[in-house]
Parts: sequence; structure tokens; C-alpha cells
Amino acid sequence: MSQTRPSSIREIADKLGVSTATVSNALRGKGRVSSTLAAQIRREADMLGYVPDHTARALRTGKSNTVGLLVPNIGQPLFPAFAQAIERAAKQRGLAVLIGDSQSDPQQQDFEIRNMIARGVDALIVIPTRGTTIAPESVSVPVAVIDSAVTAGNIAASDHREGGRMIARHLIELGHDRLLVLAGPENSQVARERVEGMCEVFRPAGIEPALKYSDATFEAGGILGRELDLHRFTACAAAYDALAVGFAIAAQNRGFSIPADISLTGFDDLMWAQIVSPPLTTVRQDLESVANHALSFVVGESDTSRIFPTDLVVRQSTARPSALAKGGLHAE
Amino acid sequence: MSQTRPSSIREIADKLGVSTATVSNALRGKGRVSSTLAAQIRREADMLGYVPDHTARALRTGKSNTVGLLVPNIGQPLFPAFAQAIERAAKQRGLAVLIGDSQSDPQQQDFEIRNMIARGVDALIVIPTRGTTIAPESVSVPVAVIDSAVTAGNIAASDHREGGRMIARHLIELGHDRLLVLAGPENSQVARERVEGMCEVFRPAGIEPALKYSDATFEAGGILGRELDLHRFTACAAAYDALAVGFAIAAQNRGFSIPADISLTGFDDLMWAQIVSPPLTTVRQDLESVANHALSFVVGESDTSRIFPTDLVVRQSTARPSALAKGGLHAE
Repeated sequence: MSQTRPSSIREIADKLGVSTATVSNALRGKGRVSSTLAAQIRREADMLGYVPDHTARALRTGKSNTVGLLVPNIGQPLFPAFAQAIERAAKQRGLAVLIGDSQSDPQQQDFEIRNMIARGVDALIVIPTRGTTIAPESVSVPVAVIDSAVTAGNIAASDHREGGRMIARHLIELGHDRLLVLAGPENSQVARERVEGMCEVFRPAGIEPALKYSDATFEAGGILGRELDLHRFTACAAAYDALAVGFAIAAQNRGFSIPADISLTGFDDLMWAQIVSPPLTTVRQDLESVANHALSFVVGESDTSRIFPTDLVVRQSTARPSALAKGGLHAE
Repeated sequence: MSQTRPSSIREIADKLGVSTATVSNALRGKGRVSSTLAAQIRREADMLGYVPDHTARALRTGKSNTVGLLVPNIGQPLFPAFAQAIERAAKQRGLAVLIGDSQSDPQQQDFEIRNMIARGVDALIVIPTRGTTIAPESVSVPVAVIDSAVTAGNIAASDHREGGRMIARHLIELGHDRLLVLAGPENSQVARERVEGMCEVFRPAGIEPALKYSDATFEAGGILGRELDLHRFTACAAAYDALAVGFAIAAQNRGFSIPADISLTGFDDLMWAQIVSPPLTTVRQDLESVANHALSFVVGESDTSRIFPTDLVVRQSTARPSALAKGGLHAE
């Protein structure tokens, strides 16, 4: 990691009339070099396109040793968490990461891919914005898609369907039988997998959940929590934590107690799930493993696609339905 | 925004034996072009380094029309929110944004700056990781630093000091007189400004707050909320929402009621401040204005540094101290 480019260092040293050791120290932030001189050295280095350490090695090989990560929307807290997992996986391999944001816009996504390639990334990891797919053959660098098991070209994904099944089994074991499902966006493959997994368990148990589609946001959950007739349900299973958290606050503002009046589950185990009151029962993705596999694919360590198990995280937002809630429909 | 590079389009058309209109349509995702042919055209375009729209214009001018944004830690929710504000300001000007993450590591920050320059960004916006400063003269592209009013080289900042004063005035008006301040990291200039602003108001009112330094995280707030003797205080003012939220949950788990036993304030107005129960009184930064000014500086529309006002956001975590809490110290 501490390789240098002797030719650049020599060039800078000659130009400024200092020793190569001084240049080397200044560029590494070591030794006793005055801040004025260090700034001068740094400026010369920039003008020569000198970059330290493994990037210097990269320039010699014609590679940037930089991976581009494209996320659907940096404002949704799952994606910064994903970015950190990708950064850790990249650091282990001496690679840099540049993050682009599709801003939930398919055209922006296309533009970001082109721009990252124009900026010389060696490879791309793309979490597609919903309603889009990435055709690897249309991209001139190796690309790993992180989406869902059924997405064409998917390389690394969590088992969203089994996560949905886990939630449904948990709610059935508690005795819930009247289910509201906040299903998220109809055109999201990930949301569809989660909801289908739930229904695969609910339906054979004789439960037909009421599905409500919406954006995957806190705001959309708030609208549903304010407007739906919640007396009809013993439990609400959301396809995203953000939906569940928005729903929780709106329902509580109407006087519904969670879990006494209605149990609630989310999906993703964002920090939000720990912050909301009561803390949210949810499904955790193994972001480290998904990120690590996506990276191993684009650097050529692996050539297969993989699906990773999820975990059920039980907190205080789920409980047995109260006798009153169970009988609610008949009492009306 | 829809300019094209006729020479590239002609080259691709000739190579694949199709019309330039077909190539142009495929690259814009318009018209009736088969997906196989579109993928082939896209691949040729990538190999020629063709990028659509304003980036193509950029290549002709030797500019990338891309701004690099370096954040201290993408996992702290303020920074994705900042990134979105920068993206909006950039989009208005037809510029792309690439995000780098210093991962709270000064060496990583230095590396990211070098790597972004090596990737050809036209300009940089840097929110420095704490304990560091950025010397613009050491960077070979225009750079705008977003930090605090007193940071050397700062270009755009919120008035963190006045935000601290607002919090202190609010708590004094409510009648609080025994103050705990969760002051954040000792080497953060932003935290220092916030806390000094608070003390400027508390001390003339005869209140000497107890200052506790820590990381600026949820976890650090949790430790302080678990371990401190909270009976000594009528209110707790945190320098960051994350600290306040961690503190709130830990204090509530010990049986302290907010605001009945202790009032609590944060700083930043993260989504967390709305999600925690009770919702948090805090200070909101005008991220849009800060972001817009930083961008206007690096593109040469402005050559001054500016400080932007903050807003006090009063929610349910602050109230008058109860008679019991007021007398708490004497009752022990």
C-alpha cells in the first residue's frame, strides 16, 4: 500500500529544489516538512496526476482500482448502509469506491453508469432503481447487479422471499389471523418477493391478507396509518421498515397501541427500527455477505450468482393479539 | 441536454451497418430498436468512450462536468441528506456528482481527494472529517469546504453557534437551570461552535452546564444515558441528534420520562428526530442553501464564503421542568 512512483517524486524534487525524501515525506504526511512547502509539493503532485499508494500502482497498470457503486436513492437509509458494506469489502482488496445516486430515476441511473465509465471506474456494482434492469452486456466494464433472486442478471441478493415467509410464520405463531400487508411499490421486484413470501405462508393457513401498494417511504406509511380502517386487522406486515415506521407513528397518533391493538413488522433492520417506539420486529439482510460477493464477482474472484439468507429480528412491536382485537371484527 | 457527438454516432452506425438515426435512438432509449441491437450499440458507444448529453459536450471542452463530494461518513444520516442537497444544486447546473466517503479517517479523506482528482472531477466539495482541515492551495481543482464559520478556508456553513444559542434560550425560557450538555467530540469544530453558542447564553444566566465529550453517535449517547446521574439535571442539550436519540432511549429504559423528568434537545433535525418518541426539539440546518452556495463557489458563480442561519424546531421532548425535577438536587 505504500508503493511510490520514483519518477514523479524525482520530478517534483528537481522542480522545487528539494530532496526526494522531503517530497516523499510531504506526500505521506510524515517527517518535518513546513506546511507551505508541503502544499507546494502536493500541488505539483496533483499537476503531474500523482496519486499515492495503490492508485499509483493502478496508473502504471492502466487500471483505476476504483469500483463505482450506483444506489437507487442515497436518501433511503438502507443504501448508505449498503455503501459502507461495499466500502469494507473494497478496502480488503485495496480498491476505492465512488458512489453515484440514481435519485430514483431510470434516466439518471443510465446517465450515472455512463458517467462512471467515463470517469474510468474498473467495474460497477449497481442496485437498480425500481422498475429497471441492467443488461451487463450493454456495459463495457464488469458489472454486478444486487437486486432479487428472480431479477435477470442478478449476482448477489438477499433471500427476500424467505424473509417474507419468516415474518408470516412469526405472526401466525403469535395467533394473528387478520392481516394488513403494506406491500410497497408494485413495480419493485424486491418488494414483490417479500410479499409473495408472506402470502405463501398466509394462504395455506387460511389467511388472505389485504395488500396495500404505495411508495416505500416513511411518508407513504404515514398516509396508510392515518387513512386505513385498522380495526379490521390484528397485525400489519410492511415490506420496508420506512413504511412500518411511518405507519407506526400515524397509527399511534390515532390512539392505536402497538402491539396491544395491532402488531407491526418491517423489513431491512434500519437504525430506524431500533429508534421507533416500540422497537420494530423486522428482517435483517446480511449486507456484508451480499456486498462481499458482488465485489468478488466484479474483480473476477467468483463467476456465480448467489442468494444469502436473512434473519428474523424479534423486538417489541409484535405480540399475541389481545382478546379484544381478535374479536374486533365481530364486535363491530 | 440532448446534444450528441455526431462523429461517434456515425462511427457506430458504420461499424454496425445501421443508420445514424437508429444509433441515436438506441442511445437515447427511444424509437423501435431491438434490445439486442440496442445493447450492441451501447457497447460500441462505451468502447468509444461515448457518453450522452451534457457529458458529451463536456468531453469536447475537456471538462467532465462532474463535481466530487467528499463526506466524513456516509453512515451518519446528515451526510446522505447533504449529498441529496448537493445533487439538487448540481442538477440545476447540468452537473453530475460523484460521492466519496472518508470513513471518518483523515488518511482515507486524503486518498479520496487524490482519487477523485485522478478520476477527472472538475471541482470538489469537501465536508472535512473531524480534526482535519483542507488547504485549498494543496488541491489542483477548485474546492469548497463546508464546515463551520471559524474553520480556515470554510466556504459555506450553517451558523452552528447561533443554533446553540437558540437551544439555550429555549431551555432557559422554559425555566431549566441544571444543564447537561452532550458536547460531542472535542476535536470537532462544528460541535465546539454549537456548544460555545449554548454556553454564551447559559453562563450570563448563571447556569454552568456539565459538559460531557464523546463520539457523535447513537451508541455514545446510549452509554451516557445509561451511566450518568440524571437526577442532577432538569435538561440535556446534545450537540447532535444521534447523541440525543441514543441518550433518550437509554434514559427511558432506566425509567426516566422525557420531558417530564428531563427535557432533551438535539441538533440537525435528522429523520431520527421525528421517529424517536417523544419527537425531538432540535436545530435544523438549511442544507439547500449551504449546498447551493458551495456549488456556486466551485463553478465560479461566487467568490465569497457565507454563513447561513439555522432554525429552532420545537417538538415534544422539551417542556417546563416539573416541580419535582426542579427540587431534585435538594431532595437527594
